[in-house]
Amino acid sequence: MRTSIATVSLSGSLTEKLTAAARAGFDGVEIFENDLLASPLSPEEIRARCADLGLSIDLYQPMRDIEAVPADEFSRNLRRARHKFELMRRLGADTVLVCSSVSPLAEDDDALAARQLRRLAELAADFGIRVAYEALAWGRHVRTYDHAWRIVEAAGHPALGTCLDSFHILARGSDPKGIEDIPGEKIFFLQLADAPQMAMDVLQWSRHYRCFPGQGGFDIAGFLGHVMRAGYRGPLSLEVFNDVFRQAEAGPTAVDAQRSLLALQEATGLATPPAPVVPTGIAFAELVTPDVEPVSALLSALGFGRTARHRSKPVDLWQQGAARVLVNTGPAARRAGTSLAAVGLESPDPAAAARRAEALLAPVLPRRRALEDAPLEAVAAPDGTELFFCAARPELPDWRGDFADLEVDADAPGRAPAHGVTRVDHLALTQPWHQFDEAALFHRSVLGLNAQDSVDVADPYGLHRSRAVTNADGSVRIALSVGPAPTDDGARAQHIAFATEDVVATARRFRAAGGRLLRIPANYYDDLAARYEFADGELETYRELGILYDRDAGGAFRHCYTETVGRVFFELVQRDAGHRGYGAQNAPVRLAAQHAGRPVR
Amino acid sequence: MRTSIATVSLSGSLTEKLTAAARAGFDGVEIFENDLLASPLSPEEIRARCADLGLSIDLYQPMRDIEAVPADEFSRNLRRARHKFELMRRLGADTVLVCSSVSPLAEDDDALAARQLRRLAELAADFGIRVAYEALAWGRHVRTYDHAWRIVEAAGHPALGTCLDSFHILARGSDPKGIEDIPGEKIFFLQLADAPQMAMDVLQWSRHYRCFPGQGGFDIAGFLGHVMRAGYRGPLSLEVFNDVFRQAEAGPTAVDAQRSLLALQEATGLATPPAPVVPTGIAFAELVTPDVEPVSALLSALGFGRTARHRSKPVDLWQQGAARVLVNTGPAARRAGTSLAAVGLESPDPAAAARRAEALLAPVLPRRRALEDAPLEAVAAPDGTELFFCAARPELPDWRGDFADLEVDADAPGRAPAHGVTRVDHLALTQPWHQFDEAALFHRSVLGLNAQDSVDVADPYGLHRSRAVTNADGSVRIALSVGPAPTDDGARAQHIAFATEDVVATARRFRAAGGRLLRIPANYYDDLAARYEFADGELETYRELGILYDRDAGGAFRHCYTETVGRVFFELVQRDAGHRGYGAQNAPVRLAAQHAGRPVR
Repeated sequence: MRTSIATVSLSGSLTEKLTAAARAGFDGVEIFENDLLASPLSPEEIRARCADLGLSIDLYQPMRDIEAVPADEFSRNLRRARHKFELMRRLGADTVLVCSSVSPLAEDDDALAARQLRRLAELAADFGIRVAYEALAWGRHVRTYDHAWRIVEAAGHPALGTCLDSFHILARGSDPKGIEDIPGEKIFFLQLADAPQMAMDVLQWSRHYRCFPGQGGFDIAGFLGHVMRAGYRGPLSLEVFNDVFRQAEAGPTAVDAQRSLLALQEATGLATPPAPVVPTGIAFAELVTPDVEPVSALLSALGFGRTARHRSKPVDLWQQGAARVLVNTGPAARRAGTSLAAVGLESPDPAAAARRAEALLAPVLPRRRALEDAPLEAVAAPDGTELFFCAARPELPDWRGDFADLEVDADAPGRAPAHGVTRVDHLALTQPWHQFDEAALFHRSVLGLNAQDSVDVADPYGLHRSRAVTNADGSVRIALSVGPAPTDDGARAQHIAFATEDVVATARRFRAAGGRLLRIPANYYDDLAARYEFADGELETYRELGILYDRDAGGAFRHCYTETVGRVFFELVQRDAGHRGYGAQNAPVRLAAQHAGRPVR
Repeated sequence: MRTSIATVSLSGSLTEKLTAAARAGFDGVEIFENDLLASPLSPEEIRARCADLGLSIDLYQPMRDIEAVPADEFSRNLRRARHKFELMRRLGADTVLVCSSVSPLAEDDDALAARQLRRLAELAADFGIRVAYEALAWGRHVRTYDHAWRIVEAAGHPALGTCLDSFHILARGSDPKGIEDIPGEKIFFLQLADAPQMAMDVLQWSRHYRCFPGQGGFDIAGFLGHVMRAGYRGPLSLEVFNDVFRQAEAGPTAVDAQRSLLALQEATGLATPPAPVVPTGIAFAELVTPDVEPVSALLSALGFGRTARHRSKPVDLWQQGAARVLVNTGPAARRAGTSLAAVGLESPDPAAAARRAEALLAPVLPRRRALEDAPLEAVAAPDGTELFFCAARPELPDWRGDFADLEVDADAPGRAPAHGVTRVDHLALTQPWHQFDEAALFHRSVLGLNAQDSVDVADPYGLHRSRAVTNADGSVRIALSVGPAPTDDGARAQHIAFATEDVVATARRFRAAGGRLLRIPANYYDDLAARYEFADGELETYRELGILYDRDAGGAFRHCYTETVGRVFFELVQRDAGHRGYGAQNAPVRLAAQHAGRPVR
């Protein structure tokens, strides 16, 4: 299907928006009137710019408050419409969106609405223009798609059809099945937008919180199915009003928008990109650091051993059980400070995983970072983290082959005995402020992971949001979160949580090896005592070590935290098999404790 | 009345919150449980800290999901309560808030709820503690204050009373008059919060958008009147959950909270601070600039003459009609860049205006900036702008006396003939991101100005909000606005709008004098032609000069803009007498044009 995007969905000047839409592969655009008014380009210049960029102008929008008004008002509206039709002729746009009236002058008179829309369509036809009439969810009298369609049908003019907008229809809880009763050729246009499920005034909801399909809570694929069965063959067009997208860079937003349409077409059977290849484990996490000493000390105290070194680059492999951490002290480290730069995902078919990622517009990275390296498929996540698809089958080229085993000296710091860490439980990545919804959609559509519900977490200095993406057996878990404001972007925290079957034992060994755990206030443990019953001494042990505790129907979750180096810290996690959480209940206490360890801002 | 504030209303650690509350003059606090849990201080240490700060602990909150549950669940709840009562004894808090249950286990059985709450009150009484039961607006079965009160009454225990929360009551649209039927001594606690009128899920509304009384849309004064007539004599306590306050510095937020309670008590007749002295005009606007040349060139081209110089400081007075601009090139200018640093407000009684401001916690500035200056009363607005109260009566000391008239040379740049500017139409000040609601409340309560409705304005790179405060005759108009994100705080725009009775003539003289007006796209004028009918040539003149046009029932508004120097630009305004707007309709086009003149970020 052809894809289109409304210019109002993107940030910036009209030319920035057009460029971003074209680069992201859209076939056309809806031109939002205010974007045209604010542009220094003439309609002819905009037309030429779109042609140069390979974009068609699929819709000019919106015309408002046209129909069902007294005769003198309507003649003023026709005068206004004539001006706009002239403009559209200069622009080369052949379809105009007319929203159902919100004017206090509008009468509740469908026959009058139909007569006046017919008159408008007659005028439009003189210009070779089609009028697409849409029910706003908050229209004065016309609020539902079937009502708008009845008026269009009654008007009976070939230049008059309807425009369907998934937000207006689904936000009102209308049953979209009735769309199949509308002849496909009378559906002149289709606008798609998702939105988080919010019980709020529908106008505010629409103006501030729309998002791209798959980012919200509506069944857009089901909706689209009805529209396709009605016989619609026009473009799939995104019209999204969102306070965050207004501020975000247009380029990445447009790519994310296009990705959402690709995933939507796949879900509706309209497109068949390469199937997702769900990762089956975390092969490694790669830290970059300009200052290797604190990171090495932490890993040693956690019981990791430095077991191998990259054959050509300053990268060490630290390992304990199936948990592997690469520590990279190369040039990137000096730019980024200590941070989590890359993740190796075990994949049953790395090449297919990369094809999927490329088809869904993930930026593909060079397959080899050095000539002699094993070729590894890799893409960049929206937050810049490099995701490597690593062979889960022994016959495929493997990253491990780039590393030479170290002769571990008995006295070397990397030689400490294993402390019970078995694997990576999860990775926690704080996202850039403008890219939280984008990140969840990326991990779902590109990697085939499932997203859990978003939760709010109160930090002493603002509200965080957090959302986890996982595979079915929990062997890949990534917790995505976002801070309260874009000002916090510079110091985005990241952490690696290691699984242990006995967090108390592992924490004790860590401390015995000189590691320092985050101090948790005594008041927290008094509250635990009020909420749960513990075996004798259990709570005292948690209190002594700074272990946090949560429990739900799936079992218990016990965890504790190391100090922070650069942007990175580590967590030790003992997770009952049925527990799917990440300690969100304890996050305010943990965040406060981490703030307490830093200078007050 | 005693004033109190819930720690959840403020940002930071518990000790930061307590310090901010005490410094802002609160008598007590509600301790929010999560703030205590996250604090490294023991309950005894918190008690001592509060005592040192002169704060009583008026409430411990909240206990949840206690009542109307099966017996085994209730016995677990009593166990939990006993822990909390022990904690409260250590803390020295004698009242606990119990919210109506949201648990799926809760039964719709008032008699059971009453029996269990009575049992809880018996246990509380053993600890010398009182239980204040409150209806959450989203409680499972108990959602209204009268329902909660019926259960409290049925329970009939002296240690059990009710807590009233203005948000929960007004958000549900309950009639607060019935509060007068509750015996005052059974109202154990009163929580006050305002909120903007929003049709949204009440839980989300409550958790994210509460604000201080006077900042929102509820009639909190009327509500408080009912509570006082019921005989309540406890503290007035603020419990405000707000995403922005969570991020803002606690100190200013606490002062703003206290100011809102002072204004509320005044509105309810509970306090009589000095009456507001509404300013009657703009005496001057003061620009600071490290680079006087571009500012002088702009003012000259606008037709201002440099008419006087400060006797002891590098400050010039530029004047045209009743519009006066001070240009200050002193040391402050080198720190601030070119910006609007101070406003002189004409006041019928500057000393009384200053007493009002001081009583409402406005930071009072030194009366003389230099020894030889006339004493001038001044306070700082939340955005740091200095507000001077200037004598509107000739017998009072006057700022003008500090200035010596200049012998204006016929060839001096300040000598250009007047261009039709009569006075300052309005000042536009972009507020720090965290202080928009605070700023409106400040200008209303401290200066006695009226606030107009808040409007959203789409900038190409994000949504702005704008709200004007004015006196009754419009001789003082200040447009407060806020950008889309705290990251924009550094370059907060400010402008001075000058009134003219003929914007075309003034604009032409400005251009003839070498001034450059902001270029407005031709598309904007094509749209004007579609929307309005103009006299022959009128629209062409606007198009030529870049004059923007708006019209409503009150008449027309014509305006145009100069280029920007530092953070400051100027606007020329021709306002029909009945028009109360500021060109919000045109702001997106103006903002886009201003962005187009700058490097793209």
